[in-house]
Amino acid sequence: MAIIGVIGGGQLARMMQPAAINLGIELRVFAESADSSAHQAAYRVGDYNNLENLIEFCHDLDALTFDHEHVPQRLLQALEARNVKVRPGSHALIHAQNKLVMRQRLEALGMPQPNWTRAESAAEIQNFIDSFGPKVIVKTPIGGYDGKGVRVVGEVSEVSDWLANLEQFGGALLVEQKVEFISECAQLSARNPSNQFVTWPLAQTIQASGVCSEVIAPFGDSKLQAEAVRIAQAISTELGVVGVLAVEMFVTPDGDLLVNELAMRPHNSGHFTQDASVTSQFEQHLRAVLDLPLGDTELTHPAAVMINLLGVNDRNNLVEHFPSVMKRFPQIKFHFYQKAARAGRKMGHLNLFGEDASELVRIGRAAREQIYNEGVER
Amino acid sequence: MAIIGVIGGGQLARMMQPAAINLGIELRVFAESADSSAHQAAYRVGDYNNLENLIEFCHDLDALTFDHEHVPQRLLQALEARNVKVRPGSHALIHAQNKLVMRQRLEALGMPQPNWTRAESAAEIQNFIDSFGPKVIVKTPIGGYDGKGVRVVGEVSEVSDWLANLEQFGGALLVEQKVEFISECAQLSARNPSNQFVTWPLAQTIQASGVCSEVIAPFGDSKLQAEAVRIAQAISTELGVVGVLAVEMFVTPDGDLLVNELAMRPHNSGHFTQDASVTSQFEQHLRAVLDLPLGDTELTHPAAVMINLLGVNDRNNLVEHFPSVMKRFPQIKFHFYQKAARAGRKMGHLNLFGEDASELVRIGRAAREQIYNEGVER
Repeated sequence: MAIIGVIGGGQLARMMQPAAINLGIELRVFAESADSSAHQAAYRVGDYNNLENLIEFCHDLDALTFDHEHVPQRLLQALEARNVKVRPGSHALIHAQNKLVMRQRLEALGMPQPNWTRAESAAEIQNFIDSFGPKVIVKTPIGGYDGKGVRVVGEVSEVSDWLANLEQFGGALLVEQKVEFISECAQLSARNPSNQFVTWPLAQTIQASGVCSEVIAPFGDSKLQAEAVRIAQAISTELGVVGVLAVEMFVTPDGDLLVNELAMRPHNSGHFTQDASVTSQFEQHLRAVLDLPLGDTELTHPAAVMINLLGVNDRNNLVEHFPSVMKRFPQIKFHFYQKAARAGRKMGHLNLFGEDASELVRIGRAAREQIYNEGVER
Repeated sequence: MAIIGVIGGGQLARMMQPAAINLGIELRVFAESADSSAHQAAYRVGDYNNLENLIEFCHDLDALTFDHEHVPQRLLQALEARNVKVRPGSHALIHAQNKLVMRQRLEALGMPQPNWTRAESAAEIQNFIDSFGPKVIVKTPIGGYDGKGVRVVGEVSEVSDWLANLEQFGGALLVEQKVEFISECAQLSARNPSNQFVTWPLAQTIQASGVCSEVIAPFGDSKLQAEAVRIAQAISTELGVVGVLAVEMFVTPDGDLLVNELAMRPHNSGHFTQDASVTSQFEQHLRAVLDLPLGDTELTHPAAVMINLLGVNDRNNLVEHFPSVMKRFPQIKFHFYQKAARAGRKMGHLNLFGEDASELVRIGRAAREQIYNEGVER
């Protein structure tokens, strides 16, 4: 029986469990807390920043993978030196951990991306604003997610707190051109150590306040889709990614793709695959990190839509309001993460599939509205 | 957060886990042993024949349900007397526990079934053989499954051991006419306490040595399908079944349906729903026992096929031979139960879906053959 360890007990680890159960894989989660989203698969609860803890956890594993990208490089490398199969490996994962390293590498690979610079000083940021402003994007290279660590600024003073604490972010900030785009999309792919590479259909991602709100697949014409696959394959192969890779991209008014972010794990933009693809991103990730052959990635229906459910406040967890929505929409697939409620927090999502994407979006939004409104009333 | 308790840690409890994880339901399994198939959800390991154990386990549950039908009536009734929501309730479950009770009740309901009799003596069996032989089916009313407790006999002496131990089977044997049939099928349905009733498409079941080997859906013409739904609805409603009900039936040469067996839980004949139905039997069972609205039951493809994987010997567990089959058939969905290997034991299954059932059967059998042969070679 294969054993996979997962660092982090969030919803991504949680959603690996069904795939592990089906495939007969033992999933062992190293969780931050006893009440984590993936608590049922928790094998150890503790601090993943402790090498001794990690070494003990990795004993017996056929592969180690991740719910998030926060495990420091020095620890990953220490595990690799002890022959733990860290997947993706530290050399690949660094590009999802440090946005400056990613920008440098993508530039070397000739991948299309926004104009950017590394900035250690107010003057360097001001120069970039002068060239590409009036507004630019400043990002902390490490530690950001879901809009955190990202600011749209017109004045250097708006990031003076970050400049005063540069060592916390690896000594520099990433400054990017504020790209004009007509939409955002994500190319989901998977690669195993045997270099098998597969892609799911390109998906449109709709963000609200920096957080993924809706995902619609498939997206784009065949030219855009082919370009997205080309980019994903180049990144996955050149960086030696093992597992799922999500490449988030902007679509410019000219129809070009520019790489925005990378994630080397199952990703919110790929949740639709749970119910609308032959092989879900979670199953594929487990197959890939074990170097098993990868499964088919076709959509099982012409269209798929994912609707995120965010916390409305810290008092109700939304799930109590599912029944009336289940009654109204027996075709919707419900996913709930068992996390403590908090406004804006990702609490769950809805998956829909069928013939017509716009109809699915309409139904999904109506369902979300009903869940939110019943939540507010209480 | 709703909490469901499950008595029994077999593969059916195991396969309830993915649905529970998706829906945000806490599943607590009362397992027979620490290495049960559903061990990851095991909340308690012990003897379910002990009322104190059961009462303690049922504290806090929103519903109690089952992986098997072996919990004695006196214990179920004792729990119901303590307001545990036993689902299906003891009054319904008795019909899946005791085949004589089932035959009597189905007769009272006017359901089509083989000729049968209750026999306490060799003379009563001989009388039945004289009327309906040369061969008849003798069954122990309780405790049988997968061909166990069932004998095809032409002489009373072939069940003299059972006649000598009648008290073990509740004081009598069930004798049934050996029905001539052209095929077997199963009608899967679900009902919740609010009396919502749904059915999946009628499925053909192919048995080998009394054990389910293959399942193909959909099956039959619209007339046969309507009759199957009528029978399932009458049984589910009249018996007050809560949860999934599988009605196994014979199709006679005249095209009539005769009820063979009942199961009041997710059933081997419904495993295809995991990957080829909008709502799987496992998700539906959890929804039903919590009295949640039931989900859609349509097939997501024109055809679905399930191929059982039985142990070839006690040395290999088959799963080690999945990779080469995964490579050859990336479209197949693999399910493995993590049970100790034993010849003839249900170890896992394969699900396939697509346009053409006969093509799916061909592929599924080729995959099984490859798994078995690689298993035997070692």
